Amino acid sequence: MKRRIIVTGDRPTGPLHLGHYVGSLRSRVELQDVHQQFVLIADLQALTDNAGNPQKVHDNVLEVMLDYLAVGIDPAKTTIFIQSLIPELAELTMFFMNLVTLGRLQRNPTVKAEIQQKQFGEGVPAGFLVYPVSQTADIVAFKADLVPAGEDQRPMIEQCNEIVRAFNRTYKADVLVECDLLPPRAEIARLPGLDGKAKMSKSLGNTINLGDSAKQVAKKVRMMYTDPEHVRPEDPGHIEGNIPFVYLDAFMTDRVRFEEMKAHYQRGGLGDGVVKGVLIEVLEELLDPIRTRRDEFAKDPAEVMRMVISSSAKAREVAAQTLSEVKNAMGIIYT
Amino acid sequence: MKRRIIVTGDRPTGPLHLGHYVGSLRSRVELQDVHQQFVLIADLQALTDNAGNPQKVHDNVLEVMLDYLAVGIDPAKTTIFIQSLIPELAELTMFFMNLVTLGRLQRNPTVKAEIQQKQFGEGVPAGFLVYPVSQTADIVAFKADLVPAGEDQRPMIEQCNEIVRAFNRTYKADVLVECDLLPPRAEIARLPGLDGKAKMSKSLGNTINLGDSAKQVAKKVRMMYTDPEHVRPEDPGHIEGNIPFVYLDAFMTDRVRFEEMKAHYQRGGLGDGVVKGVLIEVLEELLDPIRTRRDEFAKDPAEVMRMVISSSAKAREVAAQTLSEVKNAMGIIYT
Repeated sequence: MKRRIIVTGDRPTGPLHLGHYVGSLRSRVELQDVHQQFVLIADLQALTDNAGNPQKVHDNVLEVMLDYLAVGIDPAKTTIFIQSLIPELAELTMFFMNLVTLGRLQRNPTVKAEIQQKQFGEGVPAGFLVYPVSQTADIVAFKADLVPAGEDQRPMIEQCNEIVRAFNRTYKADVLVECDLLPPRAEIARLPGLDGKAKMSKSLGNTINLGDSAKQVAKKVRMMYTDPEHVRPEDPGHIEGNIPFVYLDAFMTDRVRFEEMKAHYQRGGLGDGVVKGVLIEVLEELLDPIRTRRDEFAKDPAEVMRMVISSSAKAREVAAQTLSEVKNAMGIIYT
Repeated sequence: MKRRIIVTGDRPTGPLHLGHYVGSLRSRVELQDVHQQFVLIADLQALTDNAGNPQKVHDNVLEVMLDYLAVGIDPAKTTIFIQSLIPELAELTMFFMNLVTLGRLQRNPTVKAEIQQKQFGEGVPAGFLVYPVSQTADIVAFKADLVPAGEDQRPMIEQCNEIVRAFNRTYKADVLVECDLLPPRAEIARLPGLDGKAKMSKSLGNTINLGDSAKQVAKKVRMMYTDPEHVRPEDPGHIEGNIPFVYLDAFMTDRVRFEEMKAHYQRGGLGDGVVKGVLIEVLEELLDPIRTRRDEFAKDPAEVMRMVISSSAKAREVAAQTLSEVKNAMGIIYT
């Protein structure tokens, strides 16, 4: 198997949660053993719609880094970096903005949906509109050919590859590399929120965070949306859209017991409280070691920041090399 | 008088001409003795609508630098720099793009007019639309409070000051400085083109360039648009819109002789050929020493490039200091 170069990352706007774990973090831990992986903490991108709250962005860089270390993303295997520590990414963005039209950016389906969701109205920050160009810089700076992301991000990959082709064509160069989307494993690509909403999302406040205490996890599970028609334990219950069962399906390793519970619930006689109790145990089995590692790293935040800053310096060397090739291809070098 | 900080510059897309000399270069030579002056060779900005022709941009950096040295802009007094050699300008642009809306950029009258003039149609490059933000970075990176430019550039200054205020307000800081427009001296703000078009402009091809040979200058003056009703020398002629007279008004130091020539032409008896001959003499008096200095510097282009690269390093120190203050004000620093 060919060793691929991977770029992926997160916006530091809040704690990472089980949805991130299922959708991306878990697979990063596997990918780092097989491929060359870069993970960016995208503070600049977070600022495009959080310009008024830079402290939230700043403070969550440490939190996200703690989450990474806690789940087992290993700085010895994965190059983790802070976006704003790599000025070359801003420089590449300036060059790439000339290769994409305003109209093309405005038609980007992902950005269009986000603009609607964020209710900017007439006040879309210019930085937000052009963030796909900045994201292209994040990807191509490392010559990534594989970008793990949800299907909803496919338009961003297409935008990236359009810029790559435009660059290589315009400057008759073979400098930049196109990338493929690596979608999450289909069966549990997206974890629903506690409230049964389509997606676990920090902005909806329906998450179980990786840093939550055992008490918080239990409390959140107890609040989970189940089957509203399943009033008494002895009533037959529905599994579809029943959040504790969706989570058990995602996390329970004892599949025989899981199937038994499902059948029991459907024919009646299994109460929601019991199901939730099992889920709490299952989640704790996963979360307790993560929490323990997180707490351990959190004792020395200065050391954690030192790790990501040092790792960013390594990432910067790679980005600087690509920028140099880009400038050479354009002939924008002065000696 | 308060010592001001000035930022001004040119896009390296073609040779500088007499219009530049009258409108800006001449006053820069005066300003550098009184104020702290930064002059940028805006290669990144030139690329926003010349992405397909980076070599033109690259090669004209040397030409513009030769023009600067030839007219007497002195690197010992003025900090001349190449925009792309200052990555901090790209970084500042990324931060500032979040403080201005897409709608605001689209309503910028200068940009609107340029988009129409350049006939982008639906294909406006994103980089072109946001160049006022990049220009803001160019200005504020040096804490300039005075920007010499034509009145048509006033909307750019307003855009810059809006971003400055938004930054200082949003981050409760006093880091960035608002600037004033310094319009050119009113009497000869704009030199008309050889063809009588409103403005001497490289894109209209109606210019006398500072690097033109004596022969080229003479040829161009001979082609100048005069009074179409002034057929024979003995006919009375019109001065208004008569390009040789406009140029004589701008450049002739012997004002008595100039008034005599005007009167003579108006009452009849002074041929266009004679007027043009005088203009050629007057222009040569100005251009010959410029051309001589230009040719001298052009003998050692490597040394000229060394000068601007070394000067750019000095400019970079100032920009880096401002970027550091900007990041501090935002709290986007990691240690």
